[in-house]
Amino acid sequence: MHIELICFGSELLRDKTNTNVQLIAEHLLSIGLSLTRDTTVGDDQKEVEACLKEALKRSQIVLTCGGLGPTFDDLTREAVSKVLNKPLLYSKEILKKIEQRFQSVGISMPEENNRQAYVLQGAKALLNKVGTAPGQIITLKNRHLILLPGPPQELYPMMEEEVLPYLKKIFPSFFVKTSVLHIFGKPESEIDEKIKPVVEKNWNKTGLKVIFGILAHYSIIDVKVTVEGKNKNAVEDCVLEIEKEFYKILGDELYGKNKETLESVVGQLLKKRGQTLAVAESCTGGFIANKITNIAGSSAYFKEGVVTYSDESKIKWLGVNQKTLKNFGAVSEPIAKQMAQGILRKSDSDWGISITGIAGPTGATKLKPVGMVCFGIASKNGSLTCTKIFHGTRLEIKEKSALMILELLRKQLLK
Amino acid sequence: MHIELICFGSELLRDKTNTNVQLIAEHLLSIGLSLTRDTTVGDDQKEVEACLKEALKRSQIVLTCGGLGPTFDDLTREAVSKVLNKPLLYSKEILKKIEQRFQSVGISMPEENNRQAYVLQGAKALLNKVGTAPGQIITLKNRHLILLPGPPQELYPMMEEEVLPYLKKIFPSFFVKTSVLHIFGKPESEIDEKIKPVVEKNWNKTGLKVIFGILAHYSIIDVKVTVEGKNKNAVEDCVLEIEKEFYKILGDELYGKNKETLESVVGQLLKKRGQTLAVAESCTGGFIANKITNIAGSSAYFKEGVVTYSDESKIKWLGVNQKTLKNFGAVSEPIAKQMAQGILRKSDSDWGISITGIAGPTGATKLKPVGMVCFGIASKNGSLTCTKIFHGTRLEIKEKSALMILELLRKQLLK
Repeated sequence: MHIELICFGSELLRDKTNTNVQLIAEHLLSIGLSLTRDTTVGDDQKEVEACLKEALKRSQIVLTCGGLGPTFDDLTREAVSKVLNKPLLYSKEILKKIEQRFQSVGISMPEENNRQAYVLQGAKALLNKVGTAPGQIITLKNRHLILLPGPPQELYPMMEEEVLPYLKKIFPSFFVKTSVLHIFGKPESEIDEKIKPVVEKNWNKTGLKVIFGILAHYSIIDVKVTVEGKNKNAVEDCVLEIEKEFYKILGDELYGKNKETLESVVGQLLKKRGQTLAVAESCTGGFIANKITNIAGSSAYFKEGVVTYSDESKIKWLGVNQKTLKNFGAVSEPIAKQMAQGILRKSDSDWGISITGIAGPTGATKLKPVGMVCFGIASKNGSLTCTKIFHGTRLEIKEKSALMILELLRKQLLK
Repeated sequence: MHIELICFGSELLRDKTNTNVQLIAEHLLSIGLSLTRDTTVGDDQKEVEACLKEALKRSQIVLTCGGLGPTFDDLTREAVSKVLNKPLLYSKEILKKIEQRFQSVGISMPEENNRQAYVLQGAKALLNKVGTAPGQIITLKNRHLILLPGPPQELYPMMEEEVLPYLKKIFPSFFVKTSVLHIFGKPESEIDEKIKPVVEKNWNKTGLKVIFGILAHYSIIDVKVTVEGKNKNAVEDCVLEIEKEFYKILGDELYGKNKETLESVVGQLLKKRGQTLAVAESCTGGFIANKITNIAGSSAYFKEGVVTYSDESKIKWLGVNQKTLKNFGAVSEPIAKQMAQGILRKSDSDWGISITGIAGPTGATKLKPVGMVCFGIASKNGSLTCTKIFHGTRLEIKEKSALMILELLRKQLLK
């Protein structure tokens, strides 16, 4: 079956990244449908019409995205009307809803928004909870044309609450489940080699389609399995079974699953142990504290952080030794150790972690290259340190360093 | 003129955002060319061939992206060969380059990479500085087919150093210049109203195409002007003139231009004054320190930061008064003031800034809703505070709060 998406908007062909393709694709995948093609065209009437014609020839399901706004450059409604040779009908019911939206924020509806109350003859209007333009579904013999708004915040609930239930009714007996497992700091090839037996054993399952994938980004490897089939239980059991096999092979190296992150997993472990954490950062400049506090509820275990960007602030805030600084330099394991112990003592937390390094592009010396980063972890039971050299830009080095210290701490919390 | 792009890769129709369209579009715009259409197809031979055929019928310039790798699912070379009915020729010269890349990292070339040494008959091979697959340009009567690799880090230098010079030669007398000016914290409609006279005056210039745009994201408004024309000086003068008119109308409200950010502008102002800064954060949890230290060279003016997430840490690190905490609560202007004064004193900086608020989704009270944030700025000349209420998710509230305090500081630094 061919399913395609057409995105309208000149800005998507100039300087704006299109995130709607992924949003719509993921929604479709969740009910077992995958996009065959995506086309993006600008706000040019001829192009828009040509695109619609081509797509309706090729595909059983055509989704469009954008061009439903109130202004002159919103062309979708008129183009569909022309291509299908069906009139647009003014809906008083929809107009009322649009007027109510404006009233609710104390503004009277501008004249232009009248355009959004037009619906194609025979179309089903889709509720827009967030914006003014309704979506539309037009059913044509064995084809389905679905018009969706462009802003992601309007698109998302409409996909969830209107489009997926509609498509599920047409293709009821199909199930898809995906599981993504996360690993930190291993080479892609090593993981590939390790999971090969699981992949080979499970590639061909009767009645099910099993797809494996490995994706590396920064220092994280995602191992992904997607199972598709007509029997819901068989699909779910298959995913669970493969997950188990992965855990058997990779064990504690798997730090999390699906939406879990290193910082969320560390947070869960701390909560479970009823312990607290404080952070002393130099080269990461607040990045780690920020990551940790992006998690709602992190105040339960995150006590405080200091960004000691200069030597003086390391001495003043953390009690780092001036002599050690002179002998080993700020980027050294002895300093990382003193920073971790300093924040542990000052914060009276269960864990103190520290990072000091050279994020670049300047600051390197002959012995200490850009990307050299020292890590420290301290607790009442003692402390440990290590050093890594990362490649990449300033921001990439900050990112990799933050992941590294969180992984080191996770391993300690598992003990 | 029709210019189109075809992106190959099933992952782009499943769960990966395509950032290459924007990358290629911006490069083309910089020499006055704009994309008419973008199509994405999966790794399906029939679809790939069909797409290429359609595009070559429609467009004078067709760029493709992806599918030049060494593995079985990289189909671009073969598809182009079939569609154009031209053979692929094995290039020993290119093979040598690929082998050298592997040698340079101490690996012998895998068998599969042989596939990347095939070039279409009559094609110009484009140097790939970062990866193994060369790009290719095939010139067909009055059509140009340009094959590019998918990974952005390979694509970027190839666009810059190979594709743009080639296209510039074909379309030499066309110039484009864009300027983007940034404003913080004003309603889009207010800016629209203010710049209207400039837009109306400059919309129609003889010999030049002038395009205006306003884009709002978070609390920032971008005012954009793009000028296209055949005379380089006329284009540049026109952009400069319009910029001047914008500055006349908007003055200090314009905090920066093009790639400048609030944190980079604040950094420049501090450097110019030879002054230093320290930060005390509660609800933003290190986000502001992180933003500031993302700027290379920020150690010249950024001294240190503390993330005082709990009441105790506000008392301990910043000397905040326990009684004030009890009377006004941690999210209050008196506390923001004491935090700013505390970090100023402890860091011995010229400026101390502070943020305390409720990032949500929990932590709200009857009188203090989620999104309520108090700000403080302290210097030797005194201190000021203010309170704002932001809407959005936890991360959006952190982002908006960080921008707000940077803008408040910028205004002080301009005095």
